[in-house]
Amino acid sequence: MDAVLRQSKAMCPFLKQASPATLRALSTSTRPQASQCGGTISKLQLLGQRCPVMGKALAIQSARFGSKTGMAGSAAVSGFRNFSGHPKTGKAKIHTSRSHEARAVEGTVFAPHDSVQYHPNAPGNRKANVPASSGKTAGVNAKFDYNGFYQGELDKKHKDKSYRYFNNINRLAKEFPQAHGANREERVTVWCSNDYLGMGRNPQVLKQMHETLDEYGSGAGGTRNISGHNKHAVELEGTIAKLHAKEAALVFSSCYVANDATLATLGSKLPECVILSDSLNHASMIQGIRHSGTKKLVFKHNDLEDLEAKLASLPLHVPKIIAFESVYSMCGSIGPIEGICDLADKYGAITFLDEVHAVGMYGPNGAGVAEHLDFEAHQKGRPEGTIMDRIDIITGTLGKAYGCVGGYIAGSEKLVDMIRSLAPGFIFTTSLPPATMAGARAAIEYQMNYNGDRRLQQLHTRAVKEALDRKDIPVIPNPSHIIPILVGNAELAKQASDMLLTDYQIYVQSINYPTVPVGQERLRITPTPGHTKEYRDQLVAAVDEIWSKLGIKRTSEWAAEGGFIGVGEAEASIEQPLWTDEQLGIDQQVVKQIKASKPGNLFMETLLEHESQNSTRAVSAAA
Amino acid sequence: MDAVLRQSKAMCPFLKQASPATLRALSTSTRPQASQCGGTISKLQLLGQRCPVMGKALAIQSARFGSKTGMAGSAAVSGFRNFSGHPKTGKAKIHTSRSHEARAVEGTVFAPHDSVQYHPNAPGNRKANVPASSGKTAGVNAKFDYNGFYQGELDKKHKDKSYRYFNNINRLAKEFPQAHGANREERVTVWCSNDYLGMGRNPQVLKQMHETLDEYGSGAGGTRNISGHNKHAVELEGTIAKLHAKEAALVFSSCYVANDATLATLGSKLPECVILSDSLNHASMIQGIRHSGTKKLVFKHNDLEDLEAKLASLPLHVPKIIAFESVYSMCGSIGPIEGICDLADKYGAITFLDEVHAVGMYGPNGAGVAEHLDFEAHQKGRPEGTIMDRIDIITGTLGKAYGCVGGYIAGSEKLVDMIRSLAPGFIFTTSLPPATMAGARAAIEYQMNYNGDRRLQQLHTRAVKEALDRKDIPVIPNPSHIIPILVGNAELAKQASDMLLTDYQIYVQSINYPTVPVGQERLRITPTPGHTKEYRDQLVAAVDEIWSKLGIKRTSEWAAEGGFIGVGEAEASIEQPLWTDEQLGIDQQVVKQIKASKPGNLFMETLLEHESQNSTRAVSAAA
Repeated sequence: MDAVLRQSKAMCPFLKQASPATLRALSTSTRPQASQCGGTISKLQLLGQRCPVMGKALAIQSARFGSKTGMAGSAAVSGFRNFSGHPKTGKAKIHTSRSHEARAVEGTVFAPHDSVQYHPNAPGNRKANVPASSGKTAGVNAKFDYNGFYQGELDKKHKDKSYRYFNNINRLAKEFPQAHGANREERVTVWCSNDYLGMGRNPQVLKQMHETLDEYGSGAGGTRNISGHNKHAVELEGTIAKLHAKEAALVFSSCYVANDATLATLGSKLPECVILSDSLNHASMIQGIRHSGTKKLVFKHNDLEDLEAKLASLPLHVPKIIAFESVYSMCGSIGPIEGICDLADKYGAITFLDEVHAVGMYGPNGAGVAEHLDFEAHQKGRPEGTIMDRIDIITGTLGKAYGCVGGYIAGSEKLVDMIRSLAPGFIFTTSLPPATMAGARAAIEYQMNYNGDRRLQQLHTRAVKEALDRKDIPVIPNPSHIIPILVGNAELAKQASDMLLTDYQIYVQSINYPTVPVGQERLRITPTPGHTKEYRDQLVAAVDEIWSKLGIKRTSEWAAEGGFIGVGEAEASIEQPLWTDEQLGIDQQVVKQIKASKPGNLFMETLLEHESQNSTRAVSAAA
Repeated sequence: MDAVLRQSKAMCPFLKQASPATLRALSTSTRPQASQCGGTISKLQLLGQRCPVMGKALAIQSARFGSKTGMAGSAAVSGFRNFSGHPKTGKAKIHTSRSHEARAVEGTVFAPHDSVQYHPNAPGNRKANVPASSGKTAGVNAKFDYNGFYQGELDKKHKDKSYRYFNNINRLAKEFPQAHGANREERVTVWCSNDYLGMGRNPQVLKQMHETLDEYGSGAGGTRNISGHNKHAVELEGTIAKLHAKEAALVFSSCYVANDATLATLGSKLPECVILSDSLNHASMIQGIRHSGTKKLVFKHNDLEDLEAKLASLPLHVPKIIAFESVYSMCGSIGPIEGICDLADKYGAITFLDEVHAVGMYGPNGAGVAEHLDFEAHQKGRPEGTIMDRIDIITGTLGKAYGCVGGYIAGSEKLVDMIRSLAPGFIFTTSLPPATMAGARAAIEYQMNYNGDRRLQQLHTRAVKEALDRKDIPVIPNPSHIIPILVGNAELAKQASDMLLTDYQIYVQSINYPTVPVGQERLRITPTPGHTKEYRDQLVAAVDEIWSKLGIKRTSEWAAEGGFIGVGEAEASIEQPLWTDEQLGIDQQVVKQIKASKPGNLFMETLLEHESQNSTRAVSAAA
């Protein structure tokens, strides 16, 4: 029995159980015809290289101890191999030329067409083909071509049209929602920022930041543990905990980091944990789950039935995390939060809710969709027993509706303390600057005390959706503040976006694969309270013209084909907005009046005009 | 042959090769005595559960298809299991009580003392013991106790003294290096911040930030791809590229994210990549390597021989990344950058150098240690062929010597474009705020044009090291700006830190396990240009008194025991500082003069006094 077999037997439970006959068979050599430089490879080695566990384990072990034990080389490769079909590079076509000057080495060399996985450290492999002292001679040509590889990766992005060109957009605080481009003099109207409420230019936020900058300087100067913990962190986390009616909160560099660090820590620490993840979850959650190394079950987007089937397939006592979002940012759909809480209770799971696109935007205090669902209870300050109360972990951002940067989790004291104590992504990084934390806190408090911004944002959203609808522009229906317009083609989407910017000075980024599936490419429009009628009219007219110029499909055309992802589907379009008329303070008498007197007009624009006249009158009366 | 065996055969190359006799043996049932509820478990199932690949693969597959195929349950567990010894929880002792109300189920139940790994989804396992509709009755008691688990994790931290208590420290820009604590009126001197140069209160940086805040608001409002790309990003990345004399740079939320995202992306994309990692590398690199899922070889700290042995064990053509740091922040040691570049060339590797604790601090432009090593060439603006030029990827932070927040990579155009195009941690997160980017750029440029801060920082470092040395306080010797004082005991280190804060109003965080190994606990002191003589004298006196009060070992005591990690070792103490006298502009005539005239005095303090008199004279003469 050779050394490899002995090693393998010690590590692999399957092999341990194998009969002597099998072991004998496995230790015989195979495919001598494939050898170009003499030497043999046993069947076991061949199989071991195919096994992810054994391959890796043996590779690491042999690299560590190889030089000491001096095992004979075999299964080595000199020169380049054809990497196509490699599991890590997917369809990668790497533009490296095969070396013809590869140094002859001891041991077996795989033929380039061999599909067997190559493990550089397969047992008995090291030293054999390494030109330990000849790096400058023949071996030089065999070095990996890093630049060629980078270029190859970039070529793939160009080829599938997923290469990203960044637009230089400088949002002007005093001319919101306008920005200047690379040229300071030119102006564009930004229609795709996540500064949903314009808090980035809020005077109270900016005042707080200026004062904090002057008093405490530009940076935190350390990690939270080493000189980077301060009253700004304490106060911000206190405010966030209060916002979500939770015992505690913890601030991270971003919500990407918050999601990644929290899911990775929980998933890796909870014994045998299974994470159930909505199929449209954000990349940060997907990465966190992957980094946890634990089991993941993906359930169909917003599908309670599928989620329940998956939960039911797991033993009750096993820890489970249901990870999902409230507002899915690319389509604007909203998660069935209450139903998920019910399932979590039933099957002994905890809930992890990403409210990144909802905080500041929904609920009487701006705490998000979970708060919005019990509007009155939270308005009265009674969070006990509400849906938000039932959620175990809420994550949110300070960088979208709150206009700053950073992310957080909120939950029970113990949970937050555990993440604080164990998550490397929290522990080993510099704290957010004092001014950032103070500004974010001011923004949260401002939105807790004033709902006018998010109310107006919703009215503007309704107005834009209605106007686009009137023009037969295919808005993907949803109950939230996101306005996704379906294009359905990567090049057309980019063309439409470029044309909006160049010809109409309107900035709307096109959303292509891999952010959305191929064929679902779209423009994603995000109105703010600053997008007044003039801007709205300009946007709708521009989109209408571009749709004609580029011949992009309209709603009626999608409908004629039977509809697609909600567009042109009769059923989907009746989905009611999450903010009800009542919550928005829309007077139903006025609604009836407008609909009766001006039936052909855009209802929302008329309502907004009515509102603004009323407030002008109120101001005049007060003066 | 049962279903499990069929599944296993299809998936496992080892099993595929097994003889019919082995397969027959594997499919027989085992340990019927362990069954409490009837049913059997085959040897194969038992083995499969121990195999990480098969266990996971089968678990996922069965959870997906289990309910359809309706395989019979076995190997199920009802109620709690004893988790002690679980590989993920380490020594975790989970405070959950075993349920005595567990519902009787079909299939085998492991006895609680059974050491076999339990896989909740082992084939034929689902449904069997899941009370699909009885969550509220008997099954309730079997749900996982999340709070008990969190508490257990926290208990472990308390038990091994690694639980962290954060100190509320508010660094005051106008009273640098002073801060106030929770009480605004109290003052403490901060001696452990990473704002090494006091750039956090630099007037030019603050002015730039104030102006940018007013003009562009508090946040970026989106990811780099969607409305978060702007001139501040373009200019900052341009400045960073120039600083390191590289083609391009890319800014991230933090250098934790930069290291994690870059190593994870490179390691997972480069085919068969092997990452060689210094044993003292920062957590962010360790995580990045882990997240890449590729092979890792850890080489002994700063040990070129060990690194070469590991490089030599790998085939030349295989892509390799050598990941290391310039200044290791907890001990102040400096990586052998040139030697590593030589090895990288020889063995076809690329170099990934973390200059986080060195940028702003070393080199004529503050580009770090790599720049410092060719001081004159860079002073003359000739980076070609220098050590910095040879490094493939440099990563740095904007949150330490540059006083702001954020991190970056610098390298070739293609490399940076590839990371920009592929790294989720870069793509799917909100950009840093315009004011942060503008401030960081101002800080870098300030330090490129003025070396007075880092020069003074080095002089103060020398002065503190000399004074502590004179008092027999055990400074771990190193050539950098870090002053680690060895305590060697977790409780003593925390006591010394607490005593400094409470009795002397000096803030120095204790550094305990897991940041440093058990037995190497220390105080880590970081002087700045603002730590003038008064502060230095106060620090040294306080440390000296505390060392006596607490009976902490002094250098001579360590020496008597033969020395430890450089302390009390004759050889180690002669390590020369990286900044030479010449680079610091120390006049050798003055040195001789001081040493001759005041031989008993602290040399550095006398030199600094001499310097300050000279500059006072110069100022008076100019006035």
